[in-house]
Amino acid sequence: MAESAKKAPRRTKSRAPASRDKRERILAAAVKVFAKHGFYATRVSDIAREAGVADGTIYLYFKNKDDVLISIFDDRIRRLIEVLQREIASCDTTEERLRRIIEIQLGLLEEERDLAEVVTVNLRQSSRMLKQYATPLFMEYLGVIASVIADGQREGSVRSDVSPRLAARSMWGGLDGIAVTWALADGDPANLRTAAKQFASLYWAGLASAPAQNPR
Amino acid sequence: MAESAKKAPRRTKSRAPASRDKRERILAAAVKVFAKHGFYATRVSDIAREAGVADGTIYLYFKNKDDVLISIFDDRIRRLIEVLQREIASCDTTEERLRRIIEIQLGLLEEERDLAEVVTVNLRQSSRMLKQYATPLFMEYLGVIASVIADGQREGSVRSDVSPRLAARSMWGGLDGIAVTWALADGDPANLRTAAKQFASLYWAGLASAPAQNPR
Repeated sequence: MAESAKKAPRRTKSRAPASRDKRERILAAAVKVFAKHGFYATRVSDIAREAGVADGTIYLYFKNKDDVLISIFDDRIRRLIEVLQREIASCDTTEERLRRIIEIQLGLLEEERDLAEVVTVNLRQSSRMLKQYATPLFMEYLGVIASVIADGQREGSVRSDVSPRLAARSMWGGLDGIAVTWALADGDPANLRTAAKQFASLYWAGLASAPAQNPR
Repeated sequence: MAESAKKAPRRTKSRAPASRDKRERILAAAVKVFAKHGFYATRVSDIAREAGVADGTIYLYFKNKDDVLISIFDDRIRRLIEVLQREIASCDTTEERLRRIIEIQLGLLEEERDLAEVVTVNLRQSSRMLKQYATPLFMEYLGVIASVIADGQREGSVRSDVSPRLAARSMWGGLDGIAVTWALADGDPANLRTAAKQFASLYWAGLASAPAQNPR
């Protein structure tokens, strides 16, 4: 709490490890506070209080509240994309890759529920600035899923009459829908695991190149 | 603009047709303004300006800004549920019923894009009050979809190893994901129609009781 709350906003470019820890602490606090009060209703002083730092300290690391949110996105979506790409490379089949993506997306949500709420809630805020910023990263995330599906089409395991982008969007949306309603309902991790398994089964049955035989 | 902006807040219970029109005009204006600026950043005076009424007029019909948003939800989700139930009753098979639900959810979005953004964006705001209020109506909407799937299981056209609630949640989420990314991307109605068709095909292939035959 050594910093003055009146210190003028500025941005440090290179940071020592201790400084990096404090930045992380502020981001983690912001995730909690945004999830609790929503982005718009949160004040910078709320984040400072949760992080146990002076208000001015926030401005040593971030330009403003928008910058805090953008940093959360940047940090988490990039990390998610890295994890996805590493895991996808370790799988042998398209079906396995898609199951792994589902587990990762819902698994992260399960372990970091506050974070999940920030990502889903705030991705949809109407701030034009945030939309412009978040969209390319989000599209990159969808692109990873779409490329797995396109690879499946090339190898013949995925039906060719569906757009990989459309399939990726509906997968993201379906998982997001499960996560949102799971959070609104009981939030029991066992139920989320069951949901992940059933979704993977549904989704693969829909995508697999064998024609669906409706027994009506 | 005859009303005084200083008029004390009160709520009319029974309204004449002209009054009802004004209430509708305020709701329609609010849909536009919320979509543009987001709920939190919108002031009651912004809604009044868009609707062409004095600020005080808003308070003749609504307690506050929260009440305007709740009224939008109440009005639109109830209307959507009524339309769904009527259309579902007119279909002969589960597959048809599900295709109709998909068309209605995306069709409404296509015709009322501002409204779609309000419903998807604001359903996920972190206002506890809104969540508490919106959740029962939203669950009722999901319940309509789940009951179509459960009926399909009873008649044998839908596989029995998937929870109707889970299938309904992933359907809502998948459609929501398509609508959100469609709005972020080009917003071309033709693309949304193609997406609706492909999603219906994917989703039904996933749900149909014939076992998926993966040709790996």
